[in-house]
Amino acid sequence: MSLSTLLNLLGFLNLLLAASMVLPLVINLLYDEPHGRAFLLSIAITALSGLAMIFFFKRSPRDLTHRDGFAIVAFGWIDASFFGALPYLFTGTLNSVVDAFFETVSGFTTTGSTVLTNIEGTAHSVLFWRGLTQWVGGMGIILLSLAFLPFLGVGGMQLYKAEVPGPAPDKLRPKISQTARILWQVYLLISGLEVLTLLLGGMNPFDSVCHTFTTMATGGFSTKNISIEFYKSPFLEFAITFFMFVAGANFALHYRVIKGDLNAWWRDEEFRIYFFFVLLATFLIMLNLVWAFQMDLSQAFRLAIFQVVSIQTTTGYSIVDFEKWPAFSQYMLIFLMFIGGCAGSTGGAIKCIRILVLLKQGLGELYQLVHPHAMRPVKLAGKVISSETLRGIWGLFFFYLLIFSISSLALSWMGSDIVTSISAVATTLGNVGPGLGAVGPTDNFAHLPAAAKWILSACMLFGRLEIYTLLVLLLPEFWRK
Amino acid sequence: MSLSTLLNLLGFLNLLLAASMVLPLVINLLYDEPHGRAFLLSIAITALSGLAMIFFFKRSPRDLTHRDGFAIVAFGWIDASFFGALPYLFTGTLNSVVDAFFETVSGFTTTGSTVLTNIEGTAHSVLFWRGLTQWVGGMGIILLSLAFLPFLGVGGMQLYKAEVPGPAPDKLRPKISQTARILWQVYLLISGLEVLTLLLGGMNPFDSVCHTFTTMATGGFSTKNISIEFYKSPFLEFAITFFMFVAGANFALHYRVIKGDLNAWWRDEEFRIYFFFVLLATFLIMLNLVWAFQMDLSQAFRLAIFQVVSIQTTTGYSIVDFEKWPAFSQYMLIFLMFIGGCAGSTGGAIKCIRILVLLKQGLGELYQLVHPHAMRPVKLAGKVISSETLRGIWGLFFFYLLIFSISSLALSWMGSDIVTSISAVATTLGNVGPGLGAVGPTDNFAHLPAAAKWILSACMLFGRLEIYTLLVLLLPEFWRK
Repeated sequence: MSLSTLLNLLGFLNLLLAASMVLPLVINLLYDEPHGRAFLLSIAITALSGLAMIFFFKRSPRDLTHRDGFAIVAFGWIDASFFGALPYLFTGTLNSVVDAFFETVSGFTTTGSTVLTNIEGTAHSVLFWRGLTQWVGGMGIILLSLAFLPFLGVGGMQLYKAEVPGPAPDKLRPKISQTARILWQVYLLISGLEVLTLLLGGMNPFDSVCHTFTTMATGGFSTKNISIEFYKSPFLEFAITFFMFVAGANFALHYRVIKGDLNAWWRDEEFRIYFFFVLLATFLIMLNLVWAFQMDLSQAFRLAIFQVVSIQTTTGYSIVDFEKWPAFSQYMLIFLMFIGGCAGSTGGAIKCIRILVLLKQGLGELYQLVHPHAMRPVKLAGKVISSETLRGIWGLFFFYLLIFSISSLALSWMGSDIVTSISAVATTLGNVGPGLGAVGPTDNFAHLPAAAKWILSACMLFGRLEIYTLLVLLLPEFWRK
Repeated sequence: MSLSTLLNLLGFLNLLLAASMVLPLVINLLYDEPHGRAFLLSIAITALSGLAMIFFFKRSPRDLTHRDGFAIVAFGWIDASFFGALPYLFTGTLNSVVDAFFETVSGFTTTGSTVLTNIEGTAHSVLFWRGLTQWVGGMGIILLSLAFLPFLGVGGMQLYKAEVPGPAPDKLRPKISQTARILWQVYLLISGLEVLTLLLGGMNPFDSVCHTFTTMATGGFSTKNISIEFYKSPFLEFAITFFMFVAGANFALHYRVIKGDLNAWWRDEEFRIYFFFVLLATFLIMLNLVWAFQMDLSQAFRLAIFQVVSIQTTTGYSIVDFEKWPAFSQYMLIFLMFIGGCAGSTGGAIKCIRILVLLKQGLGELYQLVHPHAMRPVKLAGKVISSETLRGIWGLFFFYLLIFSISSLALSWMGSDIVTSISAVATTLGNVGPGLGAVGPTDNFAHLPAAAKWILSACMLFGRLEIYTLLVLLLPEFWRK
């Protein structure tokens, strides 16, 4: 690990960050809000620290190694979350470092858990910055999961080596930049479509852009206290459901579909199981609502499909206080927080592909017990999954549950009840947003003790960086020459 | 699978079961209780059905296959749980088939969850039978886990092939019977010691024998409504803590210690991590009780160590209503329900050895990310664990969590709250006994709907039979010629 290279690259990241802060400054001007100085100060500090890092630390001439890759990704997200917190502090929106950091991590990791207690009373410029952190975070994630992690061999992401659009994967550098350009074009295109759709549904331009930012990133920050429930518009709800579903699926598939291969979605095994999970959970929750509340079938369907897609894609919008739902429906949402979307999407959590592979391998074991001498390797799309990839997936699954266990135990130590502890960690580790209990869809995370907020911030980072990317930094081996 | 062989062997099992019912009949006579006819009828039905099965179905002359092994084990437990339920029904202790089956499964699987609402009002003969089902079940489990599963290759139990006491493992049949004799002698010896210790502590002979039955089996059925709390005796509590701890450790190690190899416990990696988990959980819960309740340190230690050992060994006795404990302590107990004791013990759940291997493999993956070209296989006691064994452990872990998820979702559908659903399934699947919420240590399982009782009975069987042994029967492949 070359520290000098790392700091140099983080310097460039800070310049980009400072540039992106110009947008909320423009919003501030448009709405005549009094936060001009706060944003200018944030931009200045971020840009100047970036320039200083570039000036004082030089990149080492050798090629980047695996270890450099991990350090850049992990510290990149942490660095952005610290500097990105400045506008919250300088505008006085949030008064403590931990709150501002929590909100910014929740942005860049596209989680959506919030410590803001009055969203509608917050300045447009700040809300815009809040949404923008998610949209930018979403871009980062797509790049990370499709152009970076497959080559670092993290958590089974090797599977996607061949799937990535762009030139042949012989050289890493040109590949990454071309892949990024292609994927971001797709991201931008779908974002544009969503803005138009939301405008068509009667949402005002500011809210349309902000909600598009946070839908595409499966982030879930809303500009309204009661989230999408505010609009009471079935059209907007279904439109957002559609775009959340798209954002939770693999963007490499979307690229192929746009290129004319319309069958690309359905041919993909992960997409099919993703679709299946959504249908199954919607069906069961709908039934549960009809059965327990004698709810009208169409109303139950409307609520169920929105919340299932919102939670499973790890977006986290709400159109109903699902804490008032029967126990089964609430508990089902907790499971969806663990499953999550597809790899290569902006969605978080364990992800459908891994659940699928774990299931296939388990069934293979069962088959082997009946036929002890038969060989039945685990296959995906007809190709055998290497034992390395399998081990990566197993390891990720185990550490995911281990971090979940330790973090939720820590929260319960600080006085949260069991359901709050479980759901707060499940929702942050899965980058979802709202939980249950004291952190439900109509509550927020502001009332938790500072230590709990630091732990949950770490959970958001662990979840977003596929566990390993962050965990590897804790290994003493990592820092040795 | 030869159905004829299976039924023939189950016939012999019924004869053994009928013979064991003679003991509660003797108790009935000793206490002048009015259940003579009920026990005679149970014995007659069980014995005659056994004779009929032996008479009408012949064993096929060929050797037993893997598949025969699975079928015998799974149907053996199910068969015993049905016929063993007769005394509850005929004595009028329980009035429905599902309740009697639940109580008997809870016995033979050494779980300890109960549907009895007034234990002290129940006849001695019935309580004796209830305890005896656990003791016999414990014998069955030791045999299963050390002499059977290693050769069927279930869930990583191959690890124990070389560990099993007895002659060289070239032929299965003589090996099994000699191994069984050795292990049962150890089981009997320690049981004898516990009876003497409990008598010394002032427990009456009947209770001493019954509690020994259910300690050695890590079963946890008590003859008192409030379990071991009844005695208010620190001596008895520490004695029982000791014997629970022993029963939750590998009996093959106990054999070696008895043979003079006093270091055998400490040399064993699984034993060390088992001991570590107990110490860590005791320490944390003790601290939590002192911190949250300002409890006296020695009192906190007494309660913590008893409940930690009771839950982690999957026994399930209580000396305090831990539902009144702070959230952290309760939540910690739920995790212990998943970890469980050592393989080769009478304890249930995932077991320490598997947690250890999963952890080692996860760390190995992490190491591999830093050194992509290094080879670092997972080792135990200096020996490399084969990838087959690893896959077996992973598969078991996954199915364990899958069955947990589906079953607890089903319970919440039937109206249980989230904590009750989670803990009821965790405690039955882990063969522990009490849960939290509506099935806490001072509650029972009687009030649950019949469907929930069937599901939890299935969970007990799944947990006890290391998931695969039962799951494999659900595979269509299994039944094909």
